[in-house]
Amino acid sequence: MNQSTILTGDRPTGPLHLGHYVGSLRQRVALQHDHQQFVLIADLQGLTDNGSNPQKIHDNIPEVLADYLAAGIDPHLTTICLQSALPALAELTVLYMNIVTVARVERNPTVKNEIAQKGFARSLPVGFMVYPISQAADITAFKAGLVPVGDDQLPMIEQTNEIVHKMNSLLSTPVLRHCQAMLSQTSRLLGIDGNAKMSKSLGNTLTLSASEEDIHRAVCAMYTDPNHLRVSDPGCVEGNVVFTYLDAFHPDPAKVTAMKAHYQQGGLGDRACKHELEICLQELIAPMRERRNTFIQDKGALMAILREGSERARAVTQTTLDEVKRGLGLLN
Amino acid sequence: MNQSTILTGDRPTGPLHLGHYVGSLRQRVALQHDHQQFVLIADLQGLTDNGSNPQKIHDNIPEVLADYLAAGIDPHLTTICLQSALPALAELTVLYMNIVTVARVERNPTVKNEIAQKGFARSLPVGFMVYPISQAADITAFKAGLVPVGDDQLPMIEQTNEIVHKMNSLLSTPVLRHCQAMLSQTSRLLGIDGNAKMSKSLGNTLTLSASEEDIHRAVCAMYTDPNHLRVSDPGCVEGNVVFTYLDAFHPDPAKVTAMKAHYQQGGLGDRACKHELEICLQELIAPMRERRNTFIQDKGALMAILREGSERARAVTQTTLDEVKRGLGLLN
Repeated sequence: MNQSTILTGDRPTGPLHLGHYVGSLRQRVALQHDHQQFVLIADLQGLTDNGSNPQKIHDNIPEVLADYLAAGIDPHLTTICLQSALPALAELTVLYMNIVTVARVERNPTVKNEIAQKGFARSLPVGFMVYPISQAADITAFKAGLVPVGDDQLPMIEQTNEIVHKMNSLLSTPVLRHCQAMLSQTSRLLGIDGNAKMSKSLGNTLTLSASEEDIHRAVCAMYTDPNHLRVSDPGCVEGNVVFTYLDAFHPDPAKVTAMKAHYQQGGLGDRACKHELEICLQELIAPMRERRNTFIQDKGALMAILREGSERARAVTQTTLDEVKRGLGLLN
Repeated sequence: MNQSTILTGDRPTGPLHLGHYVGSLRQRVALQHDHQQFVLIADLQGLTDNGSNPQKIHDNIPEVLADYLAAGIDPHLTTICLQSALPALAELTVLYMNIVTVARVERNPTVKNEIAQKGFARSLPVGFMVYPISQAADITAFKAGLVPVGDDQLPMIEQTNEIVHKMNSLLSTPVLRHCQAMLSQTSRLLGIDGNAKMSKSLGNTLTLSASEEDIHRAVCAMYTDPNHLRVSDPGCVEGNVVFTYLDAFHPDPAKVTAMKAHYQQGGLGDRACKHELEICLQELIAPMRERRNTFIQDKGALMAILREGSERARAVTQTTLDEVKRGLGLLN
């Protein structure tokens, strides 16, 4: 068992898709065997930019949980928990807010980018501006040593460690643990249309419950090399979505390497490549879709899993909070 | 029993003084007989501008509690509770942060003034900027209908009611209660040096545990009318600290009115006025000082009172939180 605890999670703002599968779900399934792993369904963080639409967050909690189970996250190996069910996270957030300046959160590059992307301007919710502090509360409450993130999230880890340092310096004995980013080996998956951003609103994703027909149509519509007009022409694999997906999903990398060479040299058609990719995606998604369909039909059982995980997580996070409060002289 | 619940409280940043007694403690003692009254020792709010000095907050919790009891707040009539012992307050704060914009908290006039006064500039802690939201959480968690405040705090009540309105609009049935400011009858007490601001750091206060000698020296040093050179001269009562204090503390207003007339007309000396005031302050403070000295010697008993009150308050505030969370779909 590795010493480091892992904390990771998702905002329940929609069902998960292949981008999540490649970027994180697959990794979590592997890591759960030799790490203590907590996966947080971050409903409170979901509300930071959906404050007026709590129904959306509510409805997506079981969806995300079903995705987890379908992808192979095992609630006996991984503690899956709900952020709003852990009062210690809000309490730590409120405590940390006193040792972080407004200037510091305003210059967090990740938040700055997201604020620009979301076009908040003057309507920026306080909760959104403050979410790096809330994320620091999540990470530190679990005493996570490893946090799987994309490189765009590195400033979050940096800010968390600043809070750890500052808070520990106020306590007679250090309580909080510094954390390390665990960068994904895989680069971010392109949308099926080749767009760098994969998102439900762009309609360029494949969810974990995509039907056979969805998968077929998505692969058919995939962007390849626009100059590869005849099968015999040499083709380009860079920026070719089909090869990007083959790289990400094909179980036999040697075969993909051979296909690439063949394609670049000429003589391998797009249709054959897409056929190969479709088989592999159908095989990947079919069992997940089936499991997901079973899970989602029993929301009571899903929520029971979440309650049980949250109970375990509550004990862990409450212990950290008590240590911090005792250190600050707030517990007598 | 009046229908309206009252919430009030203090930041434990130092022992309370005569300004608190006149402006709020006296009123609380009267109100506790016919209202449900909660008094919150706001340690979390105390940390918003003492984030790096938690010891100060910790040390002053029993001091403030002893002041309450000495002033006559009766824990059988009033629920005295500790903010950090009520997780629902932090949880509501975090939820409310999502429905308030940064622009809105930045233009809260009370906070703007305080930020300027405290000279925070770029080092403004997030917690301080956000404290109106946290205060709204306090007020609404208790479903308080009446909040005793000075007129400088009216923007806080306004902001609280905005949050109430917005949050209720997101819930299927309204949960939160609008509140009303309860403005003090007495204007703010001057410092003993005539300064409009009474504060420990200016050394112009009298605490509830001031010794006989402290009181004597404070009254001797009090600013009167600088042009009232001879007893026979007509004197001015406006801005005359001795008369301000006689107005605030003398048990016989008719006598003070007569003294004022005599002073304005000439023939009443400062020494006689100060003598009258000193007697009345000695009589007021002596029993409080004695009670306070007894209470502060048994911190265990003090903290037991606070724990018991906090337990009662925890039940009330947790109920409100559960109602809000259920309304938002966060409780299943």
